[in-house]
Amino acid sequence: MVREEVVNKAGRAKEASRLMGSLSSFAKDQALRYMAEELVNRAEYIIEANKIDMAKGRERGLKGSLLDRLLLTEARIGEMADGLKAIADLPDPVGEITSMWKRPNGIQIGKMRVPIGVIGIIYEARPNVTVDAAGLCLKTGNAVLLRGGSEAIHSNQAIAKIISEAAVKAGIPEGAIQLIETTDREAVNIMLKLNEYIDILIPRGGAGLIQTVVKNATVPVIETGVGNCHVYVDDEADLKMAKEIVINAKTQRPGVCNAMETLLVNKKAAGVFLPDVLNTLKDEYGVEIRGCQATKELVEWVKEADDEDYYTEFLDLIMAVRVVEDMDEAMNHIYKYGTKHSEAIITTDYNKARRFQQDIDAAAVYVNASTRFTDGFQFGFGAEIGISTQKLHARGPMGLEELTTIKYIINGEGQIRK
Amino acid sequence: MVREEVVNKAGRAKEASRLMGSLSSFAKDQALRYMAEELVNRAEYIIEANKIDMAKGRERGLKGSLLDRLLLTEARIGEMADGLKAIADLPDPVGEITSMWKRPNGIQIGKMRVPIGVIGIIYEARPNVTVDAAGLCLKTGNAVLLRGGSEAIHSNQAIAKIISEAAVKAGIPEGAIQLIETTDREAVNIMLKLNEYIDILIPRGGAGLIQTVVKNATVPVIETGVGNCHVYVDDEADLKMAKEIVINAKTQRPGVCNAMETLLVNKKAAGVFLPDVLNTLKDEYGVEIRGCQATKELVEWVKEADDEDYYTEFLDLIMAVRVVEDMDEAMNHIYKYGTKHSEAIITTDYNKARRFQQDIDAAAVYVNASTRFTDGFQFGFGAEIGISTQKLHARGPMGLEELTTIKYIINGEGQIRK
Repeated sequence: MVREEVVNKAGRAKEASRLMGSLSSFAKDQALRYMAEELVNRAEYIIEANKIDMAKGRERGLKGSLLDRLLLTEARIGEMADGLKAIADLPDPVGEITSMWKRPNGIQIGKMRVPIGVIGIIYEARPNVTVDAAGLCLKTGNAVLLRGGSEAIHSNQAIAKIISEAAVKAGIPEGAIQLIETTDREAVNIMLKLNEYIDILIPRGGAGLIQTVVKNATVPVIETGVGNCHVYVDDEADLKMAKEIVINAKTQRPGVCNAMETLLVNKKAAGVFLPDVLNTLKDEYGVEIRGCQATKELVEWVKEADDEDYYTEFLDLIMAVRVVEDMDEAMNHIYKYGTKHSEAIITTDYNKARRFQQDIDAAAVYVNASTRFTDGFQFGFGAEIGISTQKLHARGPMGLEELTTIKYIINGEGQIRK
Repeated sequence: MVREEVVNKAGRAKEASRLMGSLSSFAKDQALRYMAEELVNRAEYIIEANKIDMAKGRERGLKGSLLDRLLLTEARIGEMADGLKAIADLPDPVGEITSMWKRPNGIQIGKMRVPIGVIGIIYEARPNVTVDAAGLCLKTGNAVLLRGGSEAIHSNQAIAKIISEAAVKAGIPEGAIQLIETTDREAVNIMLKLNEYIDILIPRGGAGLIQTVVKNATVPVIETGVGNCHVYVDDEADLKMAKEIVINAKTQRPGVCNAMETLLVNKKAAGVFLPDVLNTLKDEYGVEIRGCQATKELVEWVKEADDEDYYTEFLDLIMAVRVVEDMDEAMNHIYKYGTKHSEAIITTDYNKARRFQQDIDAAAVYVNASTRFTDGFQFGFGAEIGISTQKLHARGPMGLEELTTIKYIINGEGQIRK
């Protein structure tokens, strides 16, 4: 029965997707705006459903931060609707011919952006992902099969019902937006292997979810998420700038993947820099510091870091610190412990800036800026479906373009191959 | 012991790859040219090794076409060497900044092409793939782990020894080019799950090999290969052109993935077109024809096609034919039986050309040209590592660019996120 629901919905998504590549931008944008309207009009219906999830969450003893993520208010529903309108306002990537050239035999070859087909999104608590993912997939001409967490199932059902009905009323093929309604975990296992109907899977959530998907899927996966990010403060650095960036990268929003987890400091700068910045982090921001021996010698109250700390994405007001001999040692540390997400150097030295940016292998490599900018909106994409930490297809923040693939179009007048 | 060899070589490839992103184009091209020289200088050594494979192949009763693929002569070794020189002559994609922009807060964000890391190539009989894949991976700054077929093991060992030694002598890090020498099939299973060291896998060979890799790998895979390609001859078509294209697409090289397998003909054109073209295909090219009922009514000697024929990639002088009502029926046929590789329409009608090219979902969609052009060299890429039939990362012929990924480089002067 679980299989029946998943296969049936995926099959309908596949059918819908066949028609969606030809939808005009106008039709898609109109649908997105109507979906936004309907979310606002029917906010009360969503809030009622959300109350059930909230009550169950409390019963199950979900912690405060998770309950907060789950909570839907009129204001939050308004934000989700605004998100859809913002997607409608973006240019449509589908149909764009990114290049076209002519071969000596006269055939013209063009590279055209087209939808991928059916995108499976497997995500955890936040019900806003339901709206967001549906909007981004619709904009890019993809059908979407949504599988949210069981904690948010009533909220997701209400939202999916409203937006999919609105989409159909606005002329989008039936089946383009679908939510898996069973909370049986088997549904995920079935999605992972449904190559016949699902073109790609994007897991959004904790490391456990992502690893399950990556390890078991036969459908191609775009891996998102884990960011064990570093800031390296060079001996030749503007230490005032370095302090601001370190504080920002650690504390501005510690629970996200582009927050800094380990601070690396050149030993020549450590004596001046560390006592100041670590005291500020502790006293003004409540950050717990775990440092190497050299750090402890400079700042006595620091806890000792073990190897495991350097591997950890704390996602919290906790930070590891290591004093390094030089930039090479910093780069070796990043190579060993990093997850190739976002890495920064703070330096005034041109050659070191250049070499760090060249040699560090990560989705985003910064000179003199906070790692917190690794984000589709901050990069100017106007949208974000996640941040890819893999190297195939998409790397770093994924906007609309990353939800498309290409096809070659070839125009001739009878050319044959000799 | 098998595991030890694979893990050990993959680990060394990973280490080598860390240094390879920084190699200058000059150093890589010089190495490629030296590898070419050494192949020619030591041709006799390769031919001796090849003789062992040939003898074993004959013993095992390999069929003529396979033995021919396996055979290495001085001329063929010369061609492999020329291939390396041609790769050296291509522009280096690594380090190219494909776009760079400035955000309102002043940070500059650039998108830079970088190597993927370690590429695993799993391939069958042809020993030229050893040279070709090693050359393309080196050019793009990737380390390569090669796993060829057991039939060609002695040839591959000789070739890999020569080119990897030449590469090291020319200054390429040791471990950049490595061949798995055990012929134990377990080696492939180990490669498929070696996410720690291998960034992507590219299987090159028959459908069986490709499916094994796709279904069992946890390392991301680029699927290549299967092409069940169609030519649709519209009622409004230049039938002389249509005939030339059909003959070319079927017979110019029937054993490859971009050859046509099924001919679809509009019923209004069938009466004039089919008897002529099918008789020519049979009499002049020895093509076996399997047709629908309507085809048989027009051309009596045609064998009856069953549903299975329409699903089959014959890779041989065999062709299926179906008479269709109109373009929509042709497109439905392609949707049902096609593999999204290369599809062509022959028409003089502007609107049908446009709609076919828009609505057909395939890596390459042709108007009035032979499907045989789906090829990296024919497209003007100067190289080809395979033809991707998937939608992630690469679709269609893959040249040097498809062997790279990107990273974002961000330059600031102290920007933090508010």
